[in-house]
Amino acid sequence: MLKIRILSVGKTKEDWLKAGIEEFEKRLGKTAEIHWILPKNDSQLEALAKEEKGLISLDPHGIAMSSEQFSDYLHERLIAQGSKVSFLIGGAEGIPSSIKQHSFLLSFSKMTFTHQMCRLILIEQIYRAFEIAKGTTYHK
Amino acid sequence: MLKIRILSVGKTKEDWLKAGIEEFEKRLGKTAEIHWILPKNDSQLEALAKEEKGLISLDPHGIAMSSEQFSDYLHERLIAQGSKVSFLIGGAEGIPSSIKQHSFLLSFSKMTFTHQMCRLILIEQIYRAFEIAKGTTYHK
Repeated sequence: MLKIRILSVGKTKEDWLKAGIEEFEKRLGKTAEIHWILPKNDSQLEALAKEEKGLISLDPHGIAMSSEQFSDYLHERLIAQGSKVSFLIGGAEGIPSSIKQHSFLLSFSKMTFTHQMCRLILIEQIYRAFEIAKGTTYHK
Repeated sequence: MLKIRILSVGKTKEDWLKAGIEEFEKRLGKTAEIHWILPKNDSQLEALAKEEKGLISLDPHGIAMSSEQFSDYLHERLIAQGSKVSFLIGGAEGIPSSIKQHSFLLSFSKMTFTHQMCRLILIEQIYRAFEIAKGTTYHK
């Protein structure tokens, strides 16, 4: 099973967001296991990020991709990294510069989303990436 | 009160999405009233879209803006159009070409989101746009 780690500060607060995230985790089923790493603050996030290899950090100023390009990129990374990949979602202050330096910066949007909602958007794009690769009708 | 119309095919299906959308409608409070127009299919959507003046349609190939630029743009449109503005979210087949021709095409992302999740993302950006203009800390 593919292993995907998502690092982000703080627990998911809203019940409706938890339910949306759980929905996509359920749909991912046996394709990929999502492991949430939710430290309390940015300094804990920085310490944890240092241990990750090949981190993909979400940043509005990063590289923008279509969902199809993201699917290709995610699969390349999973192959190169032994079926593991890690994402990082920055908090209110953005991504600490020490993390930026050893991350691939991926932009979902020029717009800013709440970092809580980014969790839902990220997991939906991960699910979509696998459905694109499988050739199902989900993404059509 | 500002009046914002959102046109999109089909009811909001998931309870967690309904709860998320309601949360932002509640937060919008007396600033803006959201009026959802949810026809059953694309041909009904096309007929309804023709009656809208100054429609903003969400399209991955449209113009990308930061949340701050979107806030400015939304306020300009509200002033120009007598405190009313209408958005359209395309369905699985994208936006019908007849609608594209008389819309401003706005891109939230090069990525494709479900049109159901676009409702949540749009209403959060509308709320964020007003908070940016008010100078609150929400968007920081």
